[in-house]
Amino acid sequence: MFFASDNTSGVPSEIMAALTRANEGYARSYGADDIMARVTARIRALFDAPDAAVHLVATGTAANALALATLTPPWGAIFCHRHAHIAEDECGAPEFFAGGAKLALIDGPHGKITPDALTESLATTGASGVHGVQRGALSLTNVTEAGTCYTPAEIAALTAIAKSHGLPCHLDGARFANALIATGATPAEMTWKAGIDALSFGGTKNGLLGVEAVILFDPAKSWELELRRKRGGHLFSKHRFLSAQMEAYLTDDLWLRLARHANAMGQRLSSGIASLNSAALTHPTHANMVFANWEQGGHARLQSGGAIYYDLRPLPDGRETARMVASWNTTDDHVDRFLALLKG
Amino acid sequence: MFFASDNTSGVPSEIMAALTRANEGYARSYGADDIMARVTARIRALFDAPDAAVHLVATGTAANALALATLTPPWGAIFCHRHAHIAEDECGAPEFFAGGAKLALIDGPHGKITPDALTESLATTGASGVHGVQRGALSLTNVTEAGTCYTPAEIAALTAIAKSHGLPCHLDGARFANALIATGATPAEMTWKAGIDALSFGGTKNGLLGVEAVILFDPAKSWELELRRKRGGHLFSKHRFLSAQMEAYLTDDLWLRLARHANAMGQRLSSGIASLNSAALTHPTHANMVFANWEQGGHARLQSGGAIYYDLRPLPDGRETARMVASWNTTDDHVDRFLALLKG
Amino acid sequence: MFFASDNTSGVPSEIMAALTRANEGYARSYGADDIMARVTARIRALFDAPDAAVHLVATGTAANALALATLTPPWGAIFCHRHAHIAEDECGAPEFFAGGAKLALIDGPHGKITPDALTESLATTGASGVHGVQRGALSLTNVTEAGTCYTPAEIAALTAIAKSHGLPCHLDGARFANALIATGATPAEMTWKAGIDALSFGGTKNGLLGVEAVILFDPAKSWELELRRKRGGHLFSKHRFLSAQMEAYLTDDLWLRLARHANAMGQRLSSGIASLNSAALTHPTHANMVFANWEQGGHARLQSGGAIYYDLRPLPDGRETARMVASWNTTDDHVDRFLALLKG
Amino acid sequence: MFFASDNTSGVPSEIMAALTRANEGYARSYGADDIMARVTARIRALFDAPDAAVHLVATGTAANALALATLTPPWGAIFCHRHAHIAEDECGAPEFFAGGAKLALIDGPHGKITPDALTESLATTGASGVHGVQRGALSLTNVTEAGTCYTPAEIAALTAIAKSHGLPCHLDGARFANALIATGATPAEMTWKAGIDALSFGGTKNGLLGVEAVILFDPAKSWELELRRKRGGHLFSKHRFLSAQMEAYLTDDLWLRLARHANAMGQRLSSGIASLNSAALTHPTHANMVFANWEQGGHARLQSGGAIYYDLRPLPDGRETARMVASWNTTDDHVDRFLALLKG
Repeated sequence: MFFASDNTSGVPSEIMAALTRANEGYARSYGADDIMARVTARIRALFDAPDAAVHLVATGTAANALALATLTPPWGAIFCHRHAHIAEDECGAPEFFAGGAKLALIDGPHGKITPDALTESLATTGASGVHGVQRGALSLTNVTEAGTCYTPAEIAALTAIAKSHGLPCHLDGARFANALIATGATPAEMTWKAGIDALSFGGTKNGLLGVEAVILFDPAKSWELELRRKRGGHLFSKHRFLSAQMEAYLTDDLWLRLARHANAMGQRLSSGIASLNSAALTHPTHANMVFANWEQGGHARLQSGGAIYYDLRPLPDGRETARMVASWNTTDDHVDRFLALLKG
Repeated sequence: MFFASDNTSGVPSEIMAALTRANEGYARSYGADDIMARVTARIRALFDAPDAAVHLVATGTAANALALATLTPPWGAIFCHRHAHIAEDECGAPEFFAGGAKLALIDGPHGKITPDALTESLATTGASGVHGVQRGALSLTNVTEAGTCYTPAEIAALTAIAKSHGLPCHLDGARFANALIATGATPAEMTWKAGIDALSFGGTKNGLLGVEAVILFDPAKSWELELRRKRGGHLFSKHRFLSAQMEAYLTDDLWLRLARHANAMGQRLSSGIASLNSAALTHPTHANMVFANWEQGGHARLQSGGAIYYDLRPLPDGRETARMVASWNTTDDHVDRFLALLKG
Repeated sequence: MFFASDNTSGVPSEIMAALTRANEGYARSYGADDIMARVTARIRALFDAPDAAVHLVATGTAANALALATLTPPWGAIFCHRHAHIAEDECGAPEFFAGGAKLALIDGPHGKITPDALTESLATTGASGVHGVQRGALSLTNVTEAGTCYTPAEIAALTAIAKSHGLPCHLDGARFANALIATGATPAEMTWKAGIDALSFGGTKNGLLGVEAVILFDPAKSWELELRRKRGGHLFSKHRFLSAQMEAYLTDDLWLRLARHANAMGQRLSSGIASLNSAALTHPTHANMVFANWEQGGHARLQSGGAIYYDLRPLPDGRETARMVASWNTTDDHVDRFLALLKG
Repeated sequence: MFFASDNTSGVPSEIMAALTRANEGYARSYGADDIMARVTARIRALFDAPDAAVHLVATGTAANALALATLTPPWGAIFCHRHAHIAEDECGAPEFFAGGAKLALIDGPHGKITPDALTESLATTGASGVHGVQRGALSLTNVTEAGTCYTPAEIAALTAIAKSHGLPCHLDGARFANALIATGATPAEMTWKAGIDALSFGGTKNGLLGVEAVILFDPAKSWELELRRKRGGHLFSKHRFLSAQMEAYLTDDLWLRLARHANAMGQRLSSGIASLNSAALTHPTHANMVFANWEQGGHARLQSGGAIYYDLRPLPDGRETARMVASWNTTDDHVDRFLALLKG
């Protein structure tokens, strides 16, 4: 019963097979491999974005930090949710890559920024002439850190506000596939049609060994991103092994199938918890992450029963809230055993 | 006949098998996987360095830049050969990671720094009080960019000079295994016993998909390096896939066998070239990289015959010099066909 | 009636006279001037800190950013009030100088951090291992941006909390003299005896053309600060002109006399406002800055009458709040005319 | 006999008088003072550049670093002479401000870059695609660190080469007035008419307390430079005191008169030395800096006689070379006493 994170799962057999195939023979290095050309074409088609620039890196932090540094000058504020991954879980990578930029943290329920909160934050940052940092970029996350999703319309509402200040907009899509499944949106609807300029298109949490794509819908800064990637130590010599993972991921809708399964498992777990009198959801469950709380006795039963999950935080009423993440290889049995232990 | 670079080769079957094994089940992320514990123990044993800190990253540029940023303050000069990888092939990564440090470039024949040249460079850098940058660190490369090797004694002579100025010493060992084979030195003799404080222990060029270890022989800065790695976007969530490669690499001397083969192929190619009247070696061949020059007719024959190699540079006498790199999977046949084409 | 800022005033005649004296003859450059030696001795005596390192710069932003960069690694969070000068008015200088550090913003009434708020902020930052930034330093401001003062005991309570986490503590003393006058504390009581490790000792707002001292009570990082100063472009060649200002400032208690006058003028203005039914103080007035609010009619009368003041912000009840700063050369007449206009 | 540096002299009475005048009354801070408006107008007129952006800072290092950071991305190489001030005397400020940029050092006799040397350096830097740093900017210095001057035609020849690669061109004019006097060129001829995009227009070495102007002939990046200045801690609150110095400097040709005198004194010293059998010039003397060498006996006589000069470096023939800098307040008597001591 592993619900610690979707990154504690391995990868499906299709991915291993793709690595094995890619291993044959010699291949040009540093992104000039033939597979990468196909990956770029496929992503452009998928997003209905024939000019998009596509660059692969191996970690989500790299994807986010490189994208944001390309969008934002060193004196820019990056507007994001207080609990965004870039704010809490990247050890200052955006600030480092962007040359000392600042994150403007915005509160909001269930991991989401509201238009009002964004408007207010924009009103107070960048309004003091040369004395304060300037408005730099908007960064949204979908699926959010609270397991909720923005719809394309919600994203468009936020990017419209940002763009009224001239800001480029970034989407941290570490769980992008899960967000698509949750909302039914197409890749294009969720991104450039909703005002997103740069996407961190995640693969690792959804079944790859370690590959994310940075997609720039306006390719004007593609070369800058390439230089930042190299300079950041994120350009792989044996790049074919990144390309091959991404190609297999996008073949026969594997990426969507994996995410659909993970979301279904999340939903099964969430519904089960919601049906118990002794437990409650902390956030709505839109995708594969479940946040819920219950008495400490329940936590004790689960842990002694072998369930793995984290982020236990005490609530004022004595309960403890926890995060459970379903993955592409979570099974009905895992979920049901978890629920049985919780039920007691 | 692929001699473009050792990074155009794939990986041996042992590595793919290790990935497949590592893919089973769940594993703790971010370096807390069980395999990594074994890797650390094995590297410590191999280097006879029971306290060494070991951290894995996926690219050589990341390994070098993180190591150097940990050794050098932003106002430090990093002394290195003019043609070092950190100087010419990392797009300023050391300067970026170290917060604006400077590289002090030292000339020297065949890719190697001589004690006199180092002494002279140290005399002129860091000697102007607060006005100039300070002396920061020494960075050597073994195998060098010219395909030559330092012996442990040569390294010790250089680090002794650096240490007389209080400088920490880094070794870029992107081809460390090839250097050990070439010199017969042990890992310890080539590193900490010769005054090296931090090693970029390469795996990618010698048969891995993309793994390098940063080894700090004094672990005092291990936590700093971990933070820099995370902040640099170089901490893998599914870290087990890095660990597994490194574990297999070090099992049953695979790493040494691969390097021994590559060096033998380099030697075979080098000897063949040296025996021709129409060609000459540009640098001595110590490991798996061969630098040689010959008439343009030879280049034409080779290229039309399908030989892949690069770095063609015209010489004053009308010849062109080229770089050929043998790999773990170069065959006698590749070499012999290359030589036959060159002979004409 | 200039109440826009204490930096719209010029300098007293003692300072001009000191510049004229310092201008005679030749002097060693870059801080090696004889006057600087006397300044260092005098500051050490004044603070009862015989080992303190003293370095002069010309702006408060430089003093703060250099001090904080010296105290904090790039991955450190600097804990400060949400409205601290380093957070709102330095265009990201601390983040830039510290290599991409992050500011952890703490709310608190009247510009002051409370022990509880600091404790809570410390509990959530730096608690996620390698994933988040680490705790870096505490930065307090006295006089605060809201015109209030910390007592030495209040500072000591906050630094004790910070030090329980191993954090160094910085004091932004752009209006340090005003804070001493307001509290009756000695320089030592307000700083190192209360746990402060580094002080930005302001002069510019209190009567200098542009000089601030960075005082490190532990001189271990003095050389680092010198290098950062030079590298930041903040080391003056004709340094004697900084030294001379600071020497005159500290001679015959000029600095305290200037601050005492400014505070008295602030108090006169504040008391006058408080006595009106039509106006109210927004923050308590501890030193030379007055924050108050009144009807828009009052603002109209003042502005058409020639009063200069800024930071007008509407309040929910329709009033507008404003900031008035008294200076070393504010006169009773200025204050009384202001009050007369406000009274209407 | 002070020949240590032009920055060991104070300032002429006109400058002190201007400070005194500027001190009267209140003035808007942070560059919004009335004097600055006049300074901008005057500099634009002087350079025949009606659109130029003008920003004042207090040190030459700040001017250079801010200008270069504005011209060059973090992955850009700044081409400059090996002994340029930005390379040897700014403790890495350009690298720091530009976010980790690299200096590409070019050798050349007497402190000057030749077209051939620049062409060669450009051929080897930025030619390796994404692997190496890119070509960023050209930075020239006039008067050079060797006391020689570029003519406008020489500058134009170098900037033409740089511009053929699309590079912006910076001129470090710490001794710009001396270069104008030496060459007879107008400000426009020496700068934008010769291809210079940004000028560090020095004042400090030629009689100011500490003021330099950064002049951007294309104002497109003026706001960026303002933000970098603020963020670098280089925006003065009591900015009027910088403006006033610069205004007085440019009034009644004071700046040119001061430089003419300093150059004449340099020439007097240089001619005197050249006429001696026992001494020789190391570099030609174009302006106010004299580089010469003689026997150690001469150095001993001078030093015991009270002459102050620096940068003694032994030559192979046993002589020692030295640098003597004449200033706006060097007198005939100083020079003649120096020569008498040298003659022995």
